[in-house]
Amino acid sequence: MPIVQIELIEGRTLDQKRALAEKVTKAIAESLDCPESAVSIIMRELKPDNFAKEGKLWCDK
Amino acid sequence: MPIVQIELIEGRTLDQKRALAEKVTKAIAESLDCPESAVSIIMRELKPDNFAKEGKLWCDK
Amino acid sequence: MPIVQIELIEGRTLDQKRALAEKVTKAIAESLDCPESAVSIIMRELKPDNFAKEGKLWCDK
Amino acid sequence: MPIVQIELIEGRTLDQKRALAEKVTKAIAESLDCPESAVSIIMRELKPDNFAKEGKLWCDK
Amino acid sequence: MPIVQIELIEGRTLDQKRALAEKVTKAIAESLDCPESAVSIIMRELKPDNFAKEGKLWCDK
Amino acid sequence: MPIVQIELIEGRTLDQKRALAEKVTKAIAESLDCPESAVSIIMRELKPDNFAKEGKLWCDK
Repeated sequence: MPIVQIELIEGRTLDQKRALAEKVTKAIAESLDCPESAVSIIMRELKPDNFAKEGKLWCDK
Repeated sequence: MPIVQIELIEGRTLDQKRALAEKVTKAIAESLDCPESAVSIIMRELKPDNFAKEGKLWCDK
Repeated sequence: MPIVQIELIEGRTLDQKRALAEKVTKAIAESLDCPESAVSIIMRELKPDNFAKEGKLWCDK
Repeated sequence: MPIVQIELIEGRTLDQKRALAEKVTKAIAESLDCPESAVSIIMRELKPDNFAKEGKLWCDK
Repeated sequence: MPIVQIELIEGRTLDQKRALAEKVTKAIAESLDCPESAVSIIMRELKPDNFAKEGKLWCDK
Repeated sequence: MPIVQIELIEGRTLDQKRALAEKVTKAIAESLDCPESAVSIIMRELKPDNFAKEGKLWCDK
């Protein structure tokens, strides 16, 4: 605890994921005054035909 | 907002996803009296061995 | 299956939720060609201090 | 209802998933005194670069 | 890891939740051959007007 | 997009939530090189009897 789930469009590099894990963990630990070791992060990568905004698929925009 | 997450068994066509995005967005906007532009939809496709009902995997039914 | 999760800001009436359940179920059944009886919908109501956009809480906008 | 979502690192065998579906369903039905037929389980398999703990990706540990 | 999310209709006793936590954890550890200490469980209690099946709210059934 | 869901034990102040929204949004925008305006954050507060670790409810630890 806390447990974080992040949905993002696929196509990030390993280095971007590394930065995401490190920075989001730090941001949470600082804001909530909890140890970094308590933070878990799940990333879910979405294909552009599995996300829609305003009724339109991302791949059709 | 609103944010919608839909879990479905894999194997839908692009046209089915397009219809889903359009119709669900419209259904939400009408019901809640909010603009269609406010609606986000995440679809997650599950393999038949990643869903279970009544203690049995979908692929075993 | 399909299973739908909808996050929305709190404050909807029972009639709005009824309409939401009915219309979203119909929209999914039509789009994916599945029976309405297969559709489950979970609604989660968020307090305005539990949602943020652009780094700002909803209650501060 | 109840609806269960389980996030796990990828790499389980079909037999492990079968056991998971059966045992978790039984555990829930017994604890909550509900029929096994009411329990749905969604499994989501994560790649080791999509999970982080203590600010570090699983694949970097 | 694994991380479990369980949606259930509100109204369970503390003892039912205790049993749920213990039994589901054991079921997962046995099935996936992982330590019980690795299992996290989130329960989310739903009001009967926040769940729908077949297009009908639970509170209207 | 990205959409973030954070589960945390209840009892944070409004200022902690404000900091969380601001810092997590910044962390994501920097890591993924996306605008802060694209980031949505959902927080879900859990009662101590709705979270379990190692088979034990949080309220029993």
